[in-house]
Amino acid sequence: MSDQVMFTLDESEQVTHWYNVVADLPTPPPPPLHPGTREPVGPDDLAPLFPIELIMQEVTGERYVEIPEAVRDVYRQYRPSPLIRARRWEQKLGTTARIYYKYEGVSPAGSHKTNTSVPQAYYNSLHGITRLTTETGAGQWGTALSYACALFGLECEVWQVGASYDTKPQRRTLMEVFGGTVHRSPSRLTEAGKSFPEDHPGSLGIAISEAVEVAAQSENTKYALGSVLNHVLLHQTVIGEEALRQLANAGEPGADIVVGCAGGGSNFAGLAFPFLREKLAGAQSPRILAVEPSSCPSLTRGEYRYDFGDTVGMTPLLKMYTLGHDFVPSTIHAGGLRYHGMAPLVSHVYDEGLIEATALHQSECFEAALEFARTQGVVPAPESSHALAQVRREALAAAESGAEPVIVVGLSGHGLLELGAYDTFLSGRLEDDPLSDEALAAALAGVPEV
Amino acid sequence: MSDQVMFTLDESEQVTHWYNVVADLPTPPPPPLHPGTREPVGPDDLAPLFPIELIMQEVTGERYVEIPEAVRDVYRQYRPSPLIRARRWEQKLGTTARIYYKYEGVSPAGSHKTNTSVPQAYYNSLHGITRLTTETGAGQWGTALSYACALFGLECEVWQVGASYDTKPQRRTLMEVFGGTVHRSPSRLTEAGKSFPEDHPGSLGIAISEAVEVAAQSENTKYALGSVLNHVLLHQTVIGEEALRQLANAGEPGADIVVGCAGGGSNFAGLAFPFLREKLAGAQSPRILAVEPSSCPSLTRGEYRYDFGDTVGMTPLLKMYTLGHDFVPSTIHAGGLRYHGMAPLVSHVYDEGLIEATALHQSECFEAALEFARTQGVVPAPESSHALAQVRREALAAAESGAEPVIVVGLSGHGLLELGAYDTFLSGRLEDDPLSDEALAAALAGVPEV
Repeated sequence: MSDQVMFTLDESEQVTHWYNVVADLPTPPPPPLHPGTREPVGPDDLAPLFPIELIMQEVTGERYVEIPEAVRDVYRQYRPSPLIRARRWEQKLGTTARIYYKYEGVSPAGSHKTNTSVPQAYYNSLHGITRLTTETGAGQWGTALSYACALFGLECEVWQVGASYDTKPQRRTLMEVFGGTVHRSPSRLTEAGKSFPEDHPGSLGIAISEAVEVAAQSENTKYALGSVLNHVLLHQTVIGEEALRQLANAGEPGADIVVGCAGGGSNFAGLAFPFLREKLAGAQSPRILAVEPSSCPSLTRGEYRYDFGDTVGMTPLLKMYTLGHDFVPSTIHAGGLRYHGMAPLVSHVYDEGLIEATALHQSECFEAALEFARTQGVVPAPESSHALAQVRREALAAAESGAEPVIVVGLSGHGLLELGAYDTFLSGRLEDDPLSDEALAAALAGVPEV
Repeated sequence: MSDQVMFTLDESEQVTHWYNVVADLPTPPPPPLHPGTREPVGPDDLAPLFPIELIMQEVTGERYVEIPEAVRDVYRQYRPSPLIRARRWEQKLGTTARIYYKYEGVSPAGSHKTNTSVPQAYYNSLHGITRLTTETGAGQWGTALSYACALFGLECEVWQVGASYDTKPQRRTLMEVFGGTVHRSPSRLTEAGKSFPEDHPGSLGIAISEAVEVAAQSENTKYALGSVLNHVLLHQTVIGEEALRQLANAGEPGADIVVGCAGGGSNFAGLAFPFLREKLAGAQSPRILAVEPSSCPSLTRGEYRYDFGDTVGMTPLLKMYTLGHDFVPSTIHAGGLRYHGMAPLVSHVYDEGLIEATALHQSECFEAALEFARTQGVVPAPESSHALAQVRREALAAAESGAEPVIVVGLSGHGLLELGAYDTFLSGRLEDDPLSDEALAAALAGVPEV
């Protein structure tokens, strides 16, 4: 094997289509239900929020969806994201595993979120929309949408979860650099926001309610969601499609273990679903692992039920692993993983036994992240550190057994705007806060009976 | 021309040698002088500070120096840095120019500095050295050396300019993430530091004095400099060597204008010197432009004289464009450009008329940076924004004249740890602070007569 550690793609190998896992699933995923009628929602129900192209992508059964030329033209600025063999980390771990990380931190927003913000802004721009609203937790999604809106001449208005807004002014500035307008959530600008005290730390569910409320009130304004929905997961599959080709370029016939962190599920699905296709087709047989924080463990401790996507109950009911839509997770540093539910498609494949899931404490994740930074030179986002910590476990197990698995891990973004979290860890002030049985039971009590 | 905008290199095209411009200069650059004897310094004089390989690189006349395999092995993790056609920015500017930016922000430290920190740490590690000391201004260099030391098992101790230390805690944390130890300069740990009040904003010159003092006192400790010296500029030429090949891959026969920001001079030289070689050989005929801040304009308003590299006067005397070694620039946001002198090699080629120089106000630079971010999706380091502002002028001039120059600009790093500066700009609180004639005269009065 050569000394090469960074794998890209020739122009002729660039990904031209997103992959829709629905086409290959043994059973179809349960449909979303209207919050009022409890009947399956149709395209008309979603029209106030989304442009027609995204609605059709939400419900399509086609295996591949072509990436519009205008979107590919933006992807070309930073894609393919590199697939990098983590040789130095392997040496440090003394492992016989071969570890490859797919690094989305090179994107304009510093995370995978641009993969979907760009097509979402593009499709909206085709229909005379002048403004998009959204929520953001860690700030990655708000940043990505602000940039995408700048490209297509749209205004972008972001409700940032209060706890994140208060502790990370740099993140707000970055959204403003890209032209976005940022509000602390809960805000006084919406009925949803006003139903909470002004100093409330907020949650993704509350911020979604605020952004949806504003979008629903104006004809020229639509809403954009950064995870959870089928069309978002679809856009993210560019990650896994590239990774499959890059892995082949690295001389590896396939992956044995595929690992991604999972909050709403789009980063995980983006990497995992193309590998799942290969697995379902019998071409590869990887274990596919979703990693979540022990403080917000929807897959591993939630229930697979219909629940609202937001806190106030304005969205359709989604069949998903949920902790309850009024669950407010502790203010862990991986803001992007603080969501009460899990994408319906990820929930479905988990329920079908096609993927595995595990939950980790954040201290173990930061330890892995620090080791990764000091060897590979990349400071991982706290979200991504969850995937790295699981890879560390797998790599140490391989060192023990002498196995030589090929591990592909999604590094969803860099942590350069999360250095406050690293400072907390380095100074010994980081505390783990796993979800208690009592808090879980209380939150699940709020899930509606359907 | 294809739609491709990002240009990399095949493994077979990777750069294997650094380029030494001294071999091709019409006249040799003046030698450094011993601060006591005022005689040219020899290798022995530098031995307390640097390992033999770096000393030999400092004085070599060889045209090419092979990059050690251990260094190339680290470069492979992030090099070649991408050369990217800035099509969206071109469209925004309405220019007929073709603009390519060479983006060093993908490196572990987020700037070009890793190109030299890695070989410096490596060479020191060959000689039983256990600790490196250094200064840092904006923090880019301290970050790069911390990471390089982590790779080769060395301790790293960094004196960070006080003004930067006070306003950018994230930068300190990043150095600590990579394992470095950070002191505010002026510190109480050195005689040099103690000669200034504890709350002094500091300067690169003072921080250099502190780091040199500590290194000189211990056998197992050496000093590492992040710019100015010949061997540092040599290591940075990997940038220009790659850019030349990538430009050819982009179908461009050569550059018409090459632009880089210049503080100590290593970023500028790294990009420019390989193009200067082509120019001296008659293969290309680019204008080569160094851009500096109007608050610290060593090339454009300094004098070409022997001066000390540090404030206290411990270093050799270097023939360079200088504002005077006790000049303390205003606390502009481009901390990496706040150095009183300019690399002797850059000074020499400027004096010979082989390159041009200009000085810009920081407000114009931030305007260009914001425009760049909102089109290209990259937030430039405040240092790099100086080069972008000059490119903007050139591109608008081309739009006026209809000329179609190929412009290559060095984007030395990202500005994700400088968002406080962007916030200052966005909120209208940014002030320009060009150097006054009186302050210049006062500072030049301190330059020793040689």
